[in-house]
Formats: sequence, C-alpha cells, structure tokens
Amino acid sequence: MEIKELLYEGKAKKVYNTTDAYTVMVSYKDDATAFNGIKKGTIHDKGKVNNEVSNKMMMYLEEQGVKTHYIRQLNERDTLVKRVDIIPLEVIMRNKAAGSLAKRLGLEEGTLLKRPVLEFCLKDDDLGDPFINDDHILSIELATEEDIVIIKQMARTINALMKTYFEKIDIDLIDIKLEFGRTSTGEIILADEISPDTCRYWDMKTGEKLDKDRFRRDLGKIEEAYMEVYNRIFNQQ
Amino acid sequence: MEIKELLYEGKAKKVYNTTDAYTVMVSYKDDATAFNGIKKGTIHDKGKVNNEVSNKMMMYLEEQGVKTHYIRQLNERDTLVKRVDIIPLEVIMRNKAAGSLAKRLGLEEGTLLKRPVLEFCLKDDDLGDPFINDDHILSIELATEEDIVIIKQMARTINALMKTYFEKIDIDLIDIKLEFGRTSTGEIILADEISPDTCRYWDMKTGEKLDKDRFRRDLGKIEEAYMEVYNRIFNQQ
Ligand SMILES: Nc1ncnc2c1ncn2[C@@H]1O[C@H](COP(=O)(O)OP(=O)(O)OP(=O)(O)O)[C@@H](O)[C@H]1O
Ligand SMILES: Nc1ncnc2c1ncn2[C@@H]1O[C@H](COP(=O)(O)OP(=O)(O)OP(=O)(O)O)[C@@H](O)[C@H]1O
Ligand SMILES: [Mg+2]
Ligand SMILES: [Mg+2]
Repeated sequence: MEIKELLYEGKAKKVYNTTDAYTVMVSYKDDATAFNGIKKGTIHDKGKVNNEVSNKMMMYLEEQGVKTHYIRQLNERDTLVKRVDIIPLEVIMRNKAAGSLAKRLGLEEGTLLKRPVLEFCLKDDDLGDPFINDDHILSIELATEEDIVIIKQMARTINALMKTYFEKIDIDLIDIKLEFGRTSTGEIILADEISPDTCRYWDMKTGEKLDKDRFRRDLGKIEEAYMEVYNRIFNQQ
Repeated sequence: MEIKELLYEGKAKKVYNTTDAYTVMVSYKDDATAFNGIKKGTIHDKGKVNNEVSNKMMMYLEEQGVKTHYIRQLNERDTLVKRVDIIPLEVIMRNKAAGSLAKRLGLEEGTLLKRPVLEFCLKDDDLGDPFINDDHILSIELATEEDIVIIKQMARTINALMKTYFEKIDIDLIDIKLEFGRTSTGEIILADEISPDTCRYWDMKTGEKLDKDRFRRDLGKIEEAYMEVYNRIFNQQ
C-alpha cells in the first residue's frame, strides 16, 4: 500500500489517502491549539508522543473488545487507520469536574461526580463546538436513536477501561474526549486519538496536570508532562 | 382558608403562605425582566393576563389528564395552587428553532425541528440558568432517573397538547418553558405558569410575535400582544 495525497489537515494531525480506499494514514504534528484555535503554539515531540500513546490505547481497547480505527503504526508520527466518516460529535466522558463543566455547574475542579457524565458537543468550529443534547442530534439528523445508544455505550465502556488503565500508572483520568466514525460497512468505531491532547490526566499523588491544560493555562513544563505520560505507559511493562 | 405571610418574591410572581400547609397563593405582578434580570420593566396588566391565561391552560391540561398545581383563582391576579418543592430545572420544549437554540445550532429562527426538542436548564441565577443534560442532573442529584423519565414524558405531552390548543386560535407554539414540583406526597406535577412570559407564540398568519420577545427585543406593542393572546383564548368559546 502506498501513501497518496493529503486528504485534510486538522489542527493536530494530517490525514492522507492511500492506495487502499478503506485506509488512511494519520500523521501527528507538534502543533498545539486551544480555545477553538485562538491560542496557537508548538509542543516539541507532541506528535510522536500522541501517535504512540494513542496507538497503545487503541490496541489495549481492541484487546478489551472495543472496535477502533487502529490498523498499524508506520513510524514515530505516522499510523494507518481505517478510513471512517467522522460523526461530527465530540463525546466527552467526565469522572471529575474540570474545565467547562466546573464552570457550568459552579463546581470546584476535581469534584468527584456521582457517576461519569457524558456530554455531546457538535463538531463545528464556526459555532464554537457547542454543547448539545440527544434531541438536538436527532432534530438535525446527525445520528439516529440507535446510533446514540451505541455511541453512549461505547463511550462509557472506553472511559471505564481507560480509567482503570491509567490508575495502574498513578494517573487520575479526569475526563476524555472521543470521536466516533462510520466505516464503509456502516459500523460505528472509535476514531481520532486518545492522548494528553484529548484527556485530562492528573498525577494521583501530587495532583499535577499531565495534559494539554499545561498549554491552555500556561503552566510550563509542557513537554515534560507529555513525556511523563509516555514514560509511565511505556516503562510499566 | 386565609392568606398568610409572603413566602418568597420572584421576578414575576409573589408566593404567599396560607393557613393550609399544602396550599400557597401565587400573585402575578406586572414586572418584566429578561436576560437573567439585567433588563427590567413593567408591562401594564401583564399580571392579570398571565394569571388568567395560565389558569385556563392548567385547567385544560387537567381535563386532558395532566396533573398540575392549579386549585382555584381568587381574583384577577391571585390564584391558589398546590404548594410544591420546585425541582430546580427549566424544562424547555421546542417545536421550531428560536432564541438560544437558533444561536447554538446556527439555525434560522422559525426552522421546523424534525421532532420536538427537550432541553433542561439548571434554575440557578448565579450560574445564569445553564443548559445541562441528564447526566449532569444525576451527577449533582437534582432528580433520579425515574424522575427524569416522568418529567420528560409530562413535558412532551404538555407541549403536544398546548401546540394543538394554540393552533386552534391561530397561534404557532414555537417553544414553552415548564417547571415541575414535588407535592407533599412525592408526586411530580406541573407548577409555575404557562403564559406569554414563558412561551413563544407566533401569529400563524402574519408571523408576528405575541410573547415576551416583544419586551426582550424592544419590538413595541407589548401590552397589545399579551392582550391579543388573552382575547384569542377567552373569546374563542
Ligand atoms: N479514521 C479516521 N478517518 C477519517 N478521518 C479521521 C479519522 N480519525 C480522525 N479523523 C479526522 O481527522 C481530522 C484531523 O484531525 P485533527 O485532530 O488534526 O483535527 P482538528 O483540527 O482537531 O479538527 P476537528 O475540530 O475536526 O477535530 C479530524 O477532523 C478528525 O476527526
Ligand atoms: N406551586 C408552587 N409552589 C411553590 N413555589 C412555586 C409554585 N409554582 C411556582 N413556584 C415558584 O415561585 C417562584 C416565583 O415565581 P417567579 O416566576 O416570579 O420566579 P422567577 O423570578 O422567575 O424566579 P425563578 O428563576 O426561580 O423562576 C419561582 O421560584 C417558582 O419556581
Ligand atoms: Mg482533533
Ligand atoms: Mg419564573
């Protein structure tokens, strides 16, 4: 299989066509953005960390029975994945209050939620990725009721598996953003990435943030945080 | 039964204790507010219109099998209702896009929704009555899963009944805000009010707004719009 032209370039990744119609190559960049692209920067080696971390997570999830887009890593930054039509939803699972949820509900960051909270946001940069609910999804026909049931169930399962995975390496998974896509056969699978860009990771012992909040909030030691997550994952076994 | 001391005063109504522990008296004011109290004004005779309109709607809903707080109107502005513990949720049912939904989804006002959309907002002035979802409600224990099922079902039924009611008097019910409360026996019933303050009413033929948007958006002829709704309701039979 050969890599062909650039299909689209996002804020964090480039997606390339391949000679196989069902496969695309994802190439992870060091570019970092926040607040819907208003804040821009570079995090040295972020692309490598996110590529390898995300692939490891997807492989783990596959072992646990979760269908993902992961096929095979090509090199430090590039990975082959199943081409999907992304369902334009950001599916956020939250175990503790942080970020927009802490603000919305007036909760202190770190407040344990009685049960994991699932939120849908519409992937639409022009609208600022607004928070929406099931009825909005149905009314604008983004997905069917059956799709929503599947997505919610997969999101809850993935969150539970990831939470347990990270606990073992002393990381508290505060929240996680997921994207799902439809394959050519219509199956809904996990796509996009699972990385310090798309999760909030807090050190279990010190509470230190090991994720993109260090960039968003100018907390310093950004590269170190990404490397710390990488090292805990790849040095545990 | 005698009216006793003021229990609390809201932006649109005063609530008084009575000698019966299970009954309160609601007294409708002419005060109008918008944007979480930032805009303030008076709409002449609004209290009378809303009291009589709301009571008529509650009576109609009772006839159709919906449990409401309505007991008996005392005079133009005052009504006896069952005292409830208000569940701190604004339950919004939308038939066409308007206001915050139009903005959120980038839809033109008046766009027909494929199916009625239900939204929950947390009744919390300090937080600006934020839009929330079922999981938020469960995680902060505002209501149980069973409560949510009941509230949703009642809201959908009430919306459908109201939509049909208003169609008969040439009014398009765009959206409606409901509040529910728990009686002393734990039953969930419809409380608060149904009026041009809490609904969007558009004239079927002209599209003219006959509701609080005339006040919010400085459209003029505010009193006339409230009276128009009143007249259509009370002169139809
Ligand atoms: N398996 C896949 N097949 C096709 N597209 C994918 C796949 N996985 C992820 N994508 C998409 O690749 C694009 C590039 O990813 P990137 O994270 O850089 O996007 P982004 O700038 O965050 O934009 P977006 O707001 O759309 O997420 C995204 O639109 C993402 O949804
Ligand atoms: N049956 C009832 N028993 C007790 N309280 C009620 C009942 N029906 C309505 N209320 C409450 O009466 C209060 C006064 O009503 P009003 O509409 O003036 O409030 P408001 O200023 O809009 O404030 P809020 O933001 O709480 O609705 C509200 O808190 C409302 O929820
Ligand atoms: Mg992305
Ligand atoms: Mg009110």
